[in-house]
Amino acid sequence: MKELLEIVKIGGNVIDNPASLESFLKEFSKLKGNKILVHGGGKEATRLGKSLGIEAQMINGRRVTDRNTLDIVTMVYAGLINKRAVALLQSDGCDAIGLSGADANVIKAVRRSPKPVDFGFVGDISPKDVNIVIIKEFLGNGLTPVFCAICHDGKGTLLNCNADGVASALASSLSSNYSVRLTYCFDKAGVLADINNEQSVISLITPAIFEELKRKETVSGGMLPKVENALKAVKEGVAEVRICSSENIGDLSGTIIRDDSTDSDKL
Amino acid sequence: MKELLEIVKIGGNVIDNPASLESFLKEFSKLKGNKILVHGGGKEATRLGKSLGIEAQMINGRRVTDRNTLDIVTMVYAGLINKRAVALLQSDGCDAIGLSGADANVIKAVRRSPKPVDFGFVGDISPKDVNIVIIKEFLGNGLTPVFCAICHDGKGTLLNCNADGVASALASSLSSNYSVRLTYCFDKAGVLADINNEQSVISLITPAIFEELKRKETVSGGMLPKVENALKAVKEGVAEVRICSSENIGDLSGTIIRDDSTDSDKL
Repeated sequence: MKELLEIVKIGGNVIDNPASLESFLKEFSKLKGNKILVHGGGKEATRLGKSLGIEAQMINGRRVTDRNTLDIVTMVYAGLINKRAVALLQSDGCDAIGLSGADANVIKAVRRSPKPVDFGFVGDISPKDVNIVIIKEFLGNGLTPVFCAICHDGKGTLLNCNADGVASALASSLSSNYSVRLTYCFDKAGVLADINNEQSVISLITPAIFEELKRKETVSGGMLPKVENALKAVKEGVAEVRICSSENIGDLSGTIIRDDSTDSDKL
Repeated sequence: MKELLEIVKIGGNVIDNPASLESFLKEFSKLKGNKILVHGGGKEATRLGKSLGIEAQMINGRRVTDRNTLDIVTMVYAGLINKRAVALLQSDGCDAIGLSGADANVIKAVRRSPKPVDFGFVGDISPKDVNIVIIKEFLGNGLTPVFCAICHDGKGTLLNCNADGVASALASSLSSNYSVRLTYCFDKAGVLADINNEQSVISLITPAIFEELKRKETVSGGMLPKVENALKAVKEGVAEVRICSSENIGDLSGTIIRDDSTDSDKL
């Protein structure tokens, strides 16, 4: 039976609040066994850019990354946020190691085509671009990799990638060696049946249940791609995807997303 | 016989010039076997601080590091410079991994006492604070660690340290396991007998030769502490210290500093 590997992704809502980040990391550090943290960037990069007179330019929720913006996100994501998180985890007794995709060549990215939209130094990754061998070494040494979403093209250029994409590529690729639970933390307690009621968390979503939820329009808007990505991940071999609040990382609450065929004893 | 380990430290004169950095890294990547790179910060942190309205405050050549300045040096050293260097080394076929002292707890630092001068978030390190076990693992996996001089106190706080100090602590501590050659790259071809003549490189300095050079005032000013630190390192077990220009990393030129008792076959 494969060993369990927890991959947890956090975003701006945790990163932008020092007290939330500290308490999240304390809970995360208590998770037993193999674990990986992936963090996004939050508002810090936009703030720094603004102070430097560089306005963030977003298209479809994705940051256009020119040379100056690449420097800014590299400083903020790979420097400030990553090292802060690593130092805090170390103080919690978790032997964290911060990684960009360039470090030990852990994740290579492909620069996105400038057509139809030129996003600049933005990259996309797929599970085959993950260096499983070295990540297994790190985990075997008791280390907890902490990934930012800055990757490289292998030709000397850093690329700004999507943190959700990093988390799902890691989860899919490492599923060949581990039984992976991929957790997306966000600001709700899970996928809600009623957006105005935090108590209405849908506990389980399978492809069949998802069809039903879409038909009834229970799940809509920004939640649709999240669940679709989660279902894609379980189809690619991830044992389980969980969507929950960062405050609940230590318990088993939230929405569990599984493939119909997933054996419930897999984890 | 111990395996050879090359530890090379570069400073602002290489880092501040993209073409110099690129050509240096190309040569560095060709060094065979175990190697480690340590980089300082250069002027980028001062420049970024200035753009943000935070003037660098220096006392005895050391940056006073308040909370804002700590964020700036963490972004620039651990983020921008470190990841740029790692991505370039990867493109040169060198499997680099960027590390702050917090990552994998590789180097712990002690915050400097606020008396007589309060430098803020500045730390000092000693060879006993180097995590030899994990660095050996990395080298054994064929990785080339690339260190910036941001370390941590183990209690969640990052500390701004001196890159020369990081290089010498790594060299001294790893000498228990490797035959270490520590190279300091700077803007001269080595220790010069005549400061105005680049051809006057002193090829060998031992403690006895150093006494003679001091007596004749051949070596003076800023060069004195450099040579003193080098002699301290060889006394602590480093096989050889070399002071040379970054342009000469690939050849054997420059000034070699050895303990009198050093067996010349040690390397």
